[in-house]
Order: sequence, then C-alpha cells, then structure tokens
Amino acid sequence: MDITKIWEGLARSNGGRIVYVVLDGLGGLPKRDTSGTALQMAATPNLDFLAQESACGLLETVGPGITPGSGPGHLALFGYDPFKFKLGRGILSALGIDFRLKSGDVAGRVNFATIDKQGRLVDRRAGRINTKKNRKLCTKVEKAINLKNFQGKFFFETVKEHRAVLILRGDGLAGDVTDTDPQTTGSEPLEPKAKNKNSEHTARVIKSFIHQAKGILADEDQANMILTRGIDRYDPFPSLKQRFKLRAACVAAYPMYRGVSRLLGMSIAAGPETGTLDASFAALEDVYDGDYDFFFLHVKKTDSSGEDGDFGEKIKTLEAVDALIPKIANLKPDVLVVTGDHSTPARLKHHSWHPVPVMLHAQTARVDAVKNFDEYGCLAGSLGLRPGIHLIGLALAHAGRLRKYGA
Amino acid sequence: MDITKIWEGLARSNGGRIVYVVLDGLGGLPKRDTSGTALQMAATPNLDFLAQESACGLLETVGPGITPGSGPGHLALFGYDPFKFKLGRGILSALGIDFRLKSGDVAGRVNFATIDKQGRLVDRRAGRINTKKNRKLCTKVEKAINLKNFQGKFFFETVKEHRAVLILRGDGLAGDVTDTDPQTTGSEPLEPKAKNKNSEHTARVIKSFIHQAKGILADEDQANMILTRGIDRYDPFPSLKQRFKLRAACVAAYPMYRGVSRLLGMSIAAGPETGTLDASFAALEDVYDGDYDFFFLHVKKTDSSGEDGDFGEKIKTLEAVDALIPKIANLKPDVLVVTGDHSTPARLKHHSWHPVPVMLHAQTARVDAVKNFDEYGCLAGSLGLRPGIHLIGLALAHAGRLRKYGA
Repeated sequence: MDITKIWEGLARSNGGRIVYVVLDGLGGLPKRDTSGTALQMAATPNLDFLAQESACGLLETVGPGITPGSGPGHLALFGYDPFKFKLGRGILSALGIDFRLKSGDVAGRVNFATIDKQGRLVDRRAGRINTKKNRKLCTKVEKAINLKNFQGKFFFETVKEHRAVLILRGDGLAGDVTDTDPQTTGSEPLEPKAKNKNSEHTARVIKSFIHQAKGILADEDQANMILTRGIDRYDPFPSLKQRFKLRAACVAAYPMYRGVSRLLGMSIAAGPETGTLDASFAALEDVYDGDYDFFFLHVKKTDSSGEDGDFGEKIKTLEAVDALIPKIANLKPDVLVVTGDHSTPARLKHHSWHPVPVMLHAQTARVDAVKNFDEYGCLAGSLGLRPGIHLIGLALAHAGRLRKYGA
Repeated sequence: MDITKIWEGLARSNGGRIVYVVLDGLGGLPKRDTSGTALQMAATPNLDFLAQESACGLLETVGPGITPGSGPGHLALFGYDPFKFKLGRGILSALGIDFRLKSGDVAGRVNFATIDKQGRLVDRRAGRINTKKNRKLCTKVEKAINLKNFQGKFFFETVKEHRAVLILRGDGLAGDVTDTDPQTTGSEPLEPKAKNKNSEHTARVIKSFIHQAKGILADEDQANMILTRGIDRYDPFPSLKQRFKLRAACVAAYPMYRGVSRLLGMSIAAGPETGTLDASFAALEDVYDGDYDFFFLHVKKTDSSGEDGDFGEKIKTLEAVDALIPKIANLKPDVLVVTGDHSTPARLKHHSWHPVPVMLHAQTARVDAVKNFDEYGCLAGSLGLRPGIHLIGLALAHAGRLRKYGA
C-alpha cells in the first residue's frame, strides 16, 4: 500500500501552515581530528532550543544505503516517492537552468566534444571549454539548424563549461531514445536509437539535429561534435495542491530547487535575488502573510561547504543559519520542520546515505528529551528513524490537515 | 511483500497462549500544566514492573500521520492491514449494535431527517430525536414497508438518537450504491444510484425502501424522511484461525469491539455485562482455562476519558487498570501484550496519530532497560518504533507459534 495515497484521500484545507527549512546536505560525520560532526561542533543555540520544544528524529530520505541526488532527496521530503516519480537527467538539466518546460517537452543533456578526422572521439568534454564559448556555440548551432522532419520548436541552451541541454517541443514526442555518448574515447559517437515504436519520431529528429550540428561545428578546434544522453519526456507530476491540498511557495536561490518546486506546482516566491542567507530568510518572512499554506526555504551552502570538504565553512554556515532561525519561529507556523535532503559529510566531499536529523515543531508534537539538534542527539527523538517519504504525512497530521482514517 | 502472508504460512498450533490487553486510546501528550502524559502521571507500579520484564516499544498502529478510527486501529493489531481489509461505515454501524451480519448482507447508515412541503431538507438530523422515539419510528417503518422488488429480508434497526441502520439480506446484493444524504440542507435528498451494473438491483431496493419510508413517515413533525449513506456489502474476512491458527476469544463491553472481533472469527466470551473494569478482568480469568489460544480484552474508558478531555479521569482509569494487571499476569500466558489501538490525548479530545506504547511480556522476550511503561520510556525499548501490523507476528513468534522460515 502506498501511504501517500492514503494521505491524499484524508487531506483537508484547514488553514494550518507548514514551513520546511531544508538545509541541503545537513547531516555529516565527525572529522578525524574533531570530536563531533559539523552540526555538533557548531554553536546553534536557536536550533537546540527549538529542538527542545519539538519532536525529533532522523530521516533516511530516499532509502537505506541510498545516496540521494538533489532531485530524489527533495521529492521524498515533499511526499513524492522518488522510485515512482522519476526525473530524467535531461529534465533535471533543463530545470537547473530555470528553463520553463511544458508538458510533453523532451529534454536531453548535451556535451560538446572533440572528434578527430576519422570521426572518433578524442575528448568527451571538448577540453572543458568555458561557459562564454559554450553560449556562442549554442547560438551558432541554434541559428543554423533547420530540422525538416520536425514541425515543432527546439531550444539549445547553455548549462556550464562543455554542458548544454537540448529541448524539443512539439506533438508526439517521446523520451525513450538511447544515449550517443559511448562513455569512452577512441570510437565514434553512437547513433540515437528509439527504444520503442513510440520514440521513433523523436530519435529521427535528434539524429538530424546531431548530424546538422556536426556540420555547423566542423570548423571548431575543440567543440566540433555534440553527444547526447539522458533524453526524457516531461510529464508534470500531480501538484502538492492536487495531492495534499497545499498551496505552496518556494524560496530558493538555486535554479535546480526552483525547478523541482515548479514541477510540484509551487509558486516561486523568491529566486536568484536571495543569494545570501539573510535575503532568503527575509524573503520567506515577506511571503508568509500571503495565500499559502506551505513554505519551502532552501539553503544551499550547507551542502556546498560539505562538497568542498570545508568542515569549518560548514560550521560557519550552520551558525549563520542558526542566527536566522528565530525569524521563522517568530512567524509561528503550525508546523516548522528543519531537516536536510541528504547528508554531505565534509570528510567525504560528496552526498551520502547517512540519515539526516529532523525536527518537527508544533503544538501537537510529542516533545521528546532531545536537547541538541544533531545526528546523535536526534537518535533519542520521538519520531525515530524513518523514511523521508513519511515527513509530509507527519507535517500534515501535526498541522491538523489529515482527517481520521475509518470509523 | 505482505509479511502477514508469510506468518500465515509459518503459523502452527503449539498450545502457546497469547493475551492482548488493549487500552483504547492509550497514548497521549503532556497537558500544558503537567510535566507528563496521563500515562506518565498515573501511578502504575504493576505496568511498570511488567515492563521491566518485557520487551517494550511504540506502535504506529495504522501508519505515519494516520489518526486511526477504532476499526482500523484494532484490525492492525490483529494483523489485518486496514488498507486492505476495509470496513464500510454501514457495516461498522451494524457491528456497533451487535447485529449479527451474515455473509452477503448489505448494510447502510440511516439518519432520520426533516423535509419541508417542497421536499427540501430542513434538518439532516430531525432535531436529534431521542432514542426511544427512534425505536418507535423503526418499528413503524419496518411493519408498514412492503418491498415488491425484493425477495429477501430487511432489518431496520435503531442506533442512537437520529441514527439507524438498514440491513438487506438476500441474493445478489452489492454495496456500490451512492449516498442520498447531500450533506447540506436546502435541497432535496439525492437518489440512491448504482455505481456499477452489479449494484443496480440493490439501488432499486433501497430506492423503494426510501420512497415507502417517506410515505410512512409523512405524518411525523420532525422525522418525516430518511437519508442513507455508507452502503456496503458484508464479506467476512478470513478468521484468525484460518490465518494464524489462533482460537480466539474476546472480552469487550462495547458492541463495536465485539463486532470487529466477530468479524475475525473470535468467540465472544463476555459482552455488555462486563461494563466495569473488575468485571472485564474477571471475565478474562473465567474464560482463560477454556479451549482458546488468543484472548483479547478491550478497555474503553482510557479512550472515552481522553475524548472527554478529562486528563484526571484518564489517570484514574489507568491506575484502576494497573491494579487489575496482576490478575492477568498471574494467568502466566506465554505472551502478554499491553498496548492501545491509537493515542487519544486528553489535550486534543480526539484520536490522534501519535505512536502508542507497547509491551510484550514473554519468557523469550529480549528484556530491555525500560523502567516506566509510557510514551517516552518505551522510546528506549527493544521493539523500537514499528507499524501496528507487526504486533501479531511478534506475539506469535514469542509464543513459539511460528516455524522457521527456510532451511
């Protein structure tokens, strides 16, 4: 049984307000020369005080042993089972550059690459050309291409360095097309092939696109070829409103998180202008009195300091977040959740599978004995250790937004 | 994988005896002006002593964030997944008045209501007429009705105040018939409609019933109409004997719980005569030497004091239960479980989703360090925090009633 379907059936609009503060990559591990994790070492009196009035626990956001990408980690927190609601890589790339996908669009990742005179791959990343050069090449290709077998529109957009994204918009497109990147040098790029009948038209269009792009780029030294992968069709998910009767607003400085939020029907209350923590928290305060029931505030820097392996910077970021927590607590939402989408231990320099601390502050919370909001303190919490998908159900329940099941 | 199916395959009859003491609405929250929950504040030396010899934990009986009705909460404790084994509202109403449903019966809830001369609803509850009046009206309707399109029997039974229940017994009945209660006044009652071909005959019978009842009640001031809802067919569940080889007996003062027990094939060892705690516990002692392996003792007052918001009364009830616990412990069942079907915090005055403490006393239990049987003490228990559906499997295992899985 899919418990999220049960919550859908029980959800009601009662005006109860829920705030999620998602500290990306929140969880960690002690460094070898420290006596605790970044969250333990950081001075976080406000988070600790809030935890003392909350139900605490740990979330295995996607699953045991699973190191979540940013997409799946967030989907789980919002009640979208990441094994069911799948985001193709092409779709994620488009979301990550703030591209407004429409239902039925097909998107794929593109690498600029280098081939030799025999057409064999020499460099799958075209010497990691810079982003400015990438933009020039995208414009050059976009202007010159003329797809005779395609009645729709296409968009060829820069991501970063050697990476771009191709979006096709038109009737009858499908996403089951194979990658052309052979993942190795020395051989020719592969042909894009349809994995089923439905995708044959799309495969032909992509084949033409690649063929023409190769001609247009022939005079380039490095980026004289493109490779495609992660082709996927965009079919929007049912929204948080449709599923859980939540009118949701997002505050996120990074495009990827705005993209995921849009996908779930959230309104983007604030975006790139909230590049600092102060601006992000202020933006949430600003939007709080509007017509929303659900507020998602995303903090990126906890993750990026972890990915940089910068234990000290992660501590600093956590302390900076802590200083701003009272701003949110003072809004007195019915439910205030602080958690992360996954762990990013500075010692590992990448996302990890370790459970993430979570606290749920509400009048109806079973307040436990947890005194410190961290990976170890939360082990004694009344929420226990649970899958990330549980969080939205608990948040809805504590906000009075779920009716009784059965009589 | 449905774990209950595995237990079914492994279950054996070895004479091991299991007692469930279910304290309805057991779990709670601290009141604002108290330093603990009712279970923490109550002096329960016997429960605490038993907990010190038990494996303890917490049950999320139906699911995370789910506030269970009494039916689903109990089904889960007995190993019947409440999302799979569904009890319609009409069925529950019939069970709740001790009506002996037969396989294939169709039952629906009925409200007496008031309509004006144009046939529009004025009061969906007919001024909440008293139960005595209700009985008179049921008899009046039952005597006068003559269903020409129905070869079977029908029963029109009083529940309480304005509420009654209609049961149809005959061949080819089905439960997919829409409600006639529009849930609002000012419009006419709806027509009962079949949701599928299979239910067309049943819809016609109910339509005739309502039409005739309207005529029979036309001279009443208040209760001059009936509304139907929650129509459902009764198909008995596989019994505890069929599933887990348990010969089960129930001691429950309230009809609803006897009804659910009958549905699972339990014998009703004692019923309404056990209206006091003393009588209930004595009834369990009396039946214990009989031919049963499984005993279910239901205590209602822990829930009703919670629903009344009476924190003090909940404490008193828990203390009264505690004084009787040695009676059960002295029977020395192989497994003695004390738990609840859901939480009912006096502060909230209704059922809630918060996990319920559980203790499992057995010679084979992994006795933990839990000293106090309450919502917080049990967090440190060796059973952990788990779904309610797990309980029957653990009880069977600790009673030696499950064979090894695989070689």
